Amino acid sequence: MSSPSAGRPAKRATILDVAAAAGVSRQTVTRAMNDMPGIKQETRQRVQELAHELGYTPSRYAKGLVQGARTSVGLAIPDLTNPYFPAFASSVVEMATLRGWNVVMDDFGHGSGISLDAVERLSPHVDAVIGYLGPHAAEAQALLGHRPVVVLDDPEGVSAGGISFDYAYAARLGLEHLVGADRTRLAYLDSGPAALLSARGAAVTRAAADLGIELTVAHARESAEAARAAVEALLSEQPAVNGLLVFNDLMAAGALKALAVHGRSVPGDCAVMGMDGIPLGVLMSPELTTLSLDLRDVGRAAVELLAGLLTGTILPGSAAARRMLRHELVVRESA
Amino acid sequence: MSSPSAGRPAKRATILDVAAAAGVSRQTVTRAMNDMPGIKQETRQRVQELAHELGYTPSRYAKGLVQGARTSVGLAIPDLTNPYFPAFASSVVEMATLRGWNVVMDDFGHGSGISLDAVERLSPHVDAVIGYLGPHAAEAQALLGHRPVVVLDDPEGVSAGGISFDYAYAARLGLEHLVGADRTRLAYLDSGPAALLSARGAAVTRAAADLGIELTVAHARESAEAARAAVEALLSEQPAVNGLLVFNDLMAAGALKALAVHGRSVPGDCAVMGMDGIPLGVLMSPELTTLSLDLRDVGRAAVELLAGLLTGTILPGSAAARRMLRHELVVRESA
Repeated sequence: MSSPSAGRPAKRATILDVAAAAGVSRQTVTRAMNDMPGIKQETRQRVQELAHELGYTPSRYAKGLVQGARTSVGLAIPDLTNPYFPAFASSVVEMATLRGWNVVMDDFGHGSGISLDAVERLSPHVDAVIGYLGPHAAEAQALLGHRPVVVLDDPEGVSAGGISFDYAYAARLGLEHLVGADRTRLAYLDSGPAALLSARGAAVTRAAADLGIELTVAHARESAEAARAAVEALLSEQPAVNGLLVFNDLMAAGALKALAVHGRSVPGDCAVMGMDGIPLGVLMSPELTTLSLDLRDVGRAAVELLAGLLTGTILPGSAAARRMLRHELVVRESA
Repeated sequence: MSSPSAGRPAKRATILDVAAAAGVSRQTVTRAMNDMPGIKQETRQRVQELAHELGYTPSRYAKGLVQGARTSVGLAIPDLTNPYFPAFASSVVEMATLRGWNVVMDDFGHGSGISLDAVERLSPHVDAVIGYLGPHAAEAQALLGHRPVVVLDDPEGVSAGGISFDYAYAARLGLEHLVGADRTRLAYLDSGPAALLSARGAAVTRAAADLGIELTVAHARESAEAARAAVEALLSEQPAVNGLLVFNDLMAAGALKALAVHGRSVPGDCAVMGMDGIPLGVLMSPELTTLSLDLRDVGRAAVELLAGLLTGTILPGSAAARRMLRHELVVRESA
């Protein structure tokens, strides 16, 4: 908002303009503008006056870096009502706090539901973004420019950094466990419309084909309620199903409910396995067997990757900026 | 960061200084500084040059208001791993989004765990704060100055606005339901150290005394795990307990687990009642009976109150700025 003096161009002056006008280095301008030691008082005053005249204002971001302001990370999450996301967010906050960073969170599940809107809202406040950005990773990175974006669950690799999950491995692990427990009639409940398999769904059906397993695929919206209704429908149509793998733990909770309502014992009549590893799993009855991400590992990986990108030890878009994490099978009571 | 010309005082110039120097009104300065129509080009230039000379910079906040930037609300919550808080946060985000506001969230459970630190982190980014601030409401309001703070679960009334909960009503409702179901040996599990009753705990013991009910009080840390251990200990010491009221739904989930492990049927052998009304309650087995806050009402009340404070239709600290919400008894299976 600097107002150029009459006759000067309206273009915002940069640190280089000030350095050139004063005949000093860029570092000297930085020292002068931030009242740092190491330059003569006379130089400081001359630089400050020239900067003033040229309408040069150090950006909040650059000023923050110089003065050691805390790094501020934006966290974009799609839905706080799915317990996975607050658990993930809590882990990121924990790991970021250990580094003395601030975390600014945006839940974009309401309103437009578009992750890019969250990134736009976060942009004025943050030095970087971590988020579940779905199809908008490239646009988010473009919006943030040189500020790094770390995308979760993103196999596209279009942002500075990305963490993906090895669903092929998880699917195989889960199906082998069910088959090993003599589950012969398997079903998988996916999230989303029937016409479109999720990335997890695609991995599960591929693993089933590889293992020579016949698999019924059902679909539901991503909520416990919708999953419950879908599993009730599945049980009516295919009463012989005795092993059920579910898109995530929240939906698996709905599946357990449907089985209880239909008087089927779990795992006796039908085994149930979730995916995610949310803390809530141990509170279910029976306790939920699940393909679990260690959420503290996910948070740590995202924050470490971002730290490397911010300090320059990891190059944006490099192989080191792509991490793949694996689920582990956590056997509790339900399968 | 404006650098005053030599000879001028270093004190930051205000809009009034610029208005006085230019011999114009405050409104004219605002128009000149924000390139708004309605003043002569010559006046605009004179004001801008004087502002420049005096080192006057409109604050981000004032600039945002003038330019119609979106209202940005800080949301301070103590712990995303307790499902109550993401559910509450989600409701605030939903209601704020309907008004076109941004919400910036801070989970202060990690790091210092002090709500005031969250408010300090949020302060540079927000026009107002909504939060569970515990004992730091007065300091938070002092920190934000004229920007309103709406405090949740705060009977103190030291911030611009506050929403409290009628625990006396809830306690009576819950105990009467348990007594009405012939529960003669009642216990209450509080959150926190044994030496100190929570506000809810105080309300429950008072209601029990009023109703002439003998009540065993146990204590645990605020987690499902800790509650489970505390209820296991309680069952060993007082096996005749047949009605249990619990501080919140998360801890009630731990209580259900303890009863299941000890082979006690719920509600047959022992009724269990939680408090909060988190979505997770319907996923428990048996489904949790609870003293429920309508979380969408809580979010709506907080956002409406804040809207009134921001527009001036509600005066800070007035009676209208204090709302009290009541729990309702949601009878499911566990009591």
